[in-house]
Amino acid sequence: MGRPDLPPGYSIDAFHRGAFHLVQPDDGHRAGMDALVLAAAVPPIFAGTLADLGAGAGAAGLAMLARCPQARATLVEREPRMIEAARLTLDLSENSAIAGRAQILAADVELSGRERVAAGLADNAFDFAIMNPPFNAPDDRATKDDLRRSAHVMRDGLIEAWIKTAAAIVRPGGFVAIIARPVSLPAILAAFDGRLGGAEIVPVHPRPDAAAIRILVRGKRGSRAKLSLLPPLLLHEAQGHALSPCADAIVNGTGGLFER
Amino acid sequence: MGRPDLPPGYSIDAFHRGAFHLVQPDDGHRAGMDALVLAAAVPPIFAGTLADLGAGAGAAGLAMLARCPQARATLVEREPRMIEAARLTLDLSENSAIAGRAQILAADVELSGRERVAAGLADNAFDFAIMNPPFNAPDDRATKDDLRRSAHVMRDGLIEAWIKTAAAIVRPGGFVAIIARPVSLPAILAAFDGRLGGAEIVPVHPRPDAAAIRILVRGKRGSRAKLSLLPPLLLHEAQGHALSPCADAIVNGTGGLFER
Repeated sequence: MGRPDLPPGYSIDAFHRGAFHLVQPDDGHRAGMDALVLAAAVPPIFAGTLADLGAGAGAAGLAMLARCPQARATLVEREPRMIEAARLTLDLSENSAIAGRAQILAADVELSGRERVAAGLADNAFDFAIMNPPFNAPDDRATKDDLRRSAHVMRDGLIEAWIKTAAAIVRPGGFVAIIARPVSLPAILAAFDGRLGGAEIVPVHPRPDAAAIRILVRGKRGSRAKLSLLPPLLLHEAQGHALSPCADAIVNGTGGLFER
Repeated sequence: MGRPDLPPGYSIDAFHRGAFHLVQPDDGHRAGMDALVLAAAVPPIFAGTLADLGAGAGAAGLAMLARCPQARATLVEREPRMIEAARLTLDLSENSAIAGRAQILAADVELSGRERVAAGLADNAFDFAIMNPPFNAPDDRATKDDLRRSAHVMRDGLIEAWIKTAAAIVRPGGFVAIIARPVSLPAILAAFDGRLGGAEIVPVHPRPDAAAIRILVRGKRGSRAKLSLLPPLLLHEAQGHALSPCADAIVNGTGGLFER
């Protein structure tokens, strides 16, 4: 809904049963299930610093802050309108209990080397990095709207560039989690190789008998542990429209993806 | 059990409720669930030629022949004792209804180029190739027995070499299916790249709440279809020791992995 204290073209949505709110541009990508599943890859006892790469209005980062009362988050975003949305989000009175643990960094996740450090993304600076990269292939389905396009369009090498940044900015022993489409699994695993070990894959299926629509992959920097393929997250049961108990807990901030 | 018509050191097991029997050396790798799941990746209407790479005594190939009454199989194996087991298997009176559609080829799956062709594995010669490559890493858990070691020990690059052979010997539009441990998923997807498309991944979990112990990946030569991550095969339900209905159908030859 629109509000008198917001600039025109932005509106507010409540998440986690009101534990945090998000200001989003009406004509851009709208945060939803993906960001909440991604945030649920962070254990509730996490008390370190997290980078939300390509944070948009801050959905995943704020969901993590709402779940993890000791943690801090840096919302990394390059699109000026989404940075403005994140600023408006942190300024909301509804978010006053968590906004003090968040900061915004205007930077391009795809930078590398000295340029990345100069942009404020230093090596080994975070305990955890999460990301929900833009995921539509350039020729997939073009949208009229440029902002939505920017959040959805994926180019060759994007996954690798994002994971490379994530693995560089987390400390050794720190974690990286990514949510993406199953078609990106080969690129994700290739980018993890030599950077992140102990990969844990959670397929996300809309229903028990349907193919996965998303994958969540979490890895640990420098780990030599083996890859594991964990039981899937089922958004719905075989029958009915209600969320499954696991999905409902994740959407409402009471359940974790790895603590089911 | 031992039988008077077999050489010492070999015994017979029945599979698919007696639809085929296998002669196996008592001291080697014993075929089991993996071979039956692999065979179930072939549609029951398949009526072409199939290569069972690293066939051992022929479990997966014979399971496919028992499921697909019009198909033919070539059992490709390099270990002399397993080749002898496969010969004894095809000579069994219990297998007379299907053995006429099988032949044995003594060859090393890891050959490439002209050596592979010279060994009898010509390019584009098959409609389908299936494989259950040896899967223990060299330092995983050494076994005293050399034959068992040969079936279980995996070296770097083995997965790629096997998939390269499989993709070469199937015709364009033909299929390749592999069963392996989840830890081999990155190597499998890397080897599929540029050779096999439309990858379909089926995780195999012992129980709904346990990590996958195997993955089945099937691809089509030259396909540009997207990768999909299909609902898992659960060997058992949450409670009890009985096989799940899907797993029971696969073990008994009445159900397919992609026709559940």
